[in-house]
Amino acid sequence: MPQKAAPTPRNGVDTPTLFATLDAVKGQRELAKFQFRATNRWVSGTHSRSTIAGFFGAGGEQSRDQSFRLDGDHPPVLVGDDNGPTPVEYVLHALASCLTAGLANIAAARGIDLQEIESTVVGDIDLQGVLGMDDSVRNGYQGIRASFRIKGDASEQELKALLARSQARSAVYDIVTNGIPVDIQVQAESA
Amino acid sequence: MPQKAAPTPRNGVDTPTLFATLDAVKGQRELAKFQFRATNRWVSGTHSRSTIAGFFGAGGEQSRDQSFRLDGDHPPVLVGDDNGPTPVEYVLHALASCLTAGLANIAAARGIDLQEIESTVVGDIDLQGVLGMDDSVRNGYQGIRASFRIKGDASEQELKALLARSQARSAVYDIVTNGIPVDIQVQAESA
Repeated sequence: MPQKAAPTPRNGVDTPTLFATLDAVKGQRELAKFQFRATNRWVSGTHSRSTIAGFFGAGGEQSRDQSFRLDGDHPPVLVGDDNGPTPVEYVLHALASCLTAGLANIAAARGIDLQEIESTVVGDIDLQGVLGMDDSVRNGYQGIRASFRIKGDASEQELKALLARSQARSAVYDIVTNGIPVDIQVQAESA
Repeated sequence: MPQKAAPTPRNGVDTPTLFATLDAVKGQRELAKFQFRATNRWVSGTHSRSTIAGFFGAGGEQSRDQSFRLDGDHPPVLVGDDNGPTPVEYVLHALASCLTAGLANIAAARGIDLQEIESTVVGDIDLQGVLGMDDSVRNGYQGIRASFRIKGDASEQELKALLARSQARSAVYDIVTNGIPVDIQVQAESA
């Protein structure tokens, strides 16, 4: 497929660097291996805090100028103190932000200028599962519904095709719809 | 199973209220139906921001004293500006915070005082999937590994059993390991 001779930055995406990065990875596939990490510490009750800093990728350990701090908690109606979003709300944000980043990148690669992307993501959950009251009720969301509104300099069909491509290549969409293996280890210390 | 006559607050968990909440839901199962929501708006490039505020649950619409704002972005090595954690890092935090909140609640219900919970959650991902370079490579994590360290006033076996129970009743663990249906709608506007 012929590529544009001189892609230009678009949608806040540095398109020339994006294409250069793709070319670099095509030439050296192990650059695509990444490992992301979060370290979490319990604060009190249902409140915990994660620190997100370095990661491995592009052939080496990567540091960041700053580390990110994320608080998770339950709201008072679930006997928490509302010090942060609930863990399941973070999943909704992860999905929305993954699909949206993909949209901007794909539009830039296709030479489409975007003006707006908005989405609302909702998840329905029956807490009888988590509360251990009914084994026929699953612990997680029964389902998630996402509604996107995209405004850009292209036909409706082209704009919808951007989202279809983003969905087809979204890491979080894959995780959330298909599931992944999770291994949990524990070290216990009697105080 | 007999319940303690007078559970006391423990681990920052208001155990009496936790038991009262469980009893209320047992008597009126529709109180367990919740809906969580995130609204996301694209900022620029791979940067977007979610707002998390009200939700439905416990029989009605619930507001919060404050709304939460979450930024998502890609790091420079992935042609982003690092304005926030990556979407896939949010998934790691969601898993850690869900299992940790469960640990504190379950320990409180079992009368176990905890001193510390720490966890590190790592996810390995081969970006050849997301970058569309190899259809045999999935988009999401190949797998996640979580390592917990728990310190508390109980035997090692009892402390490990807390994590096993939290895992068995974790909403995010269920979502991430088993997958859930996601429906995506789009409204496109040609500018």
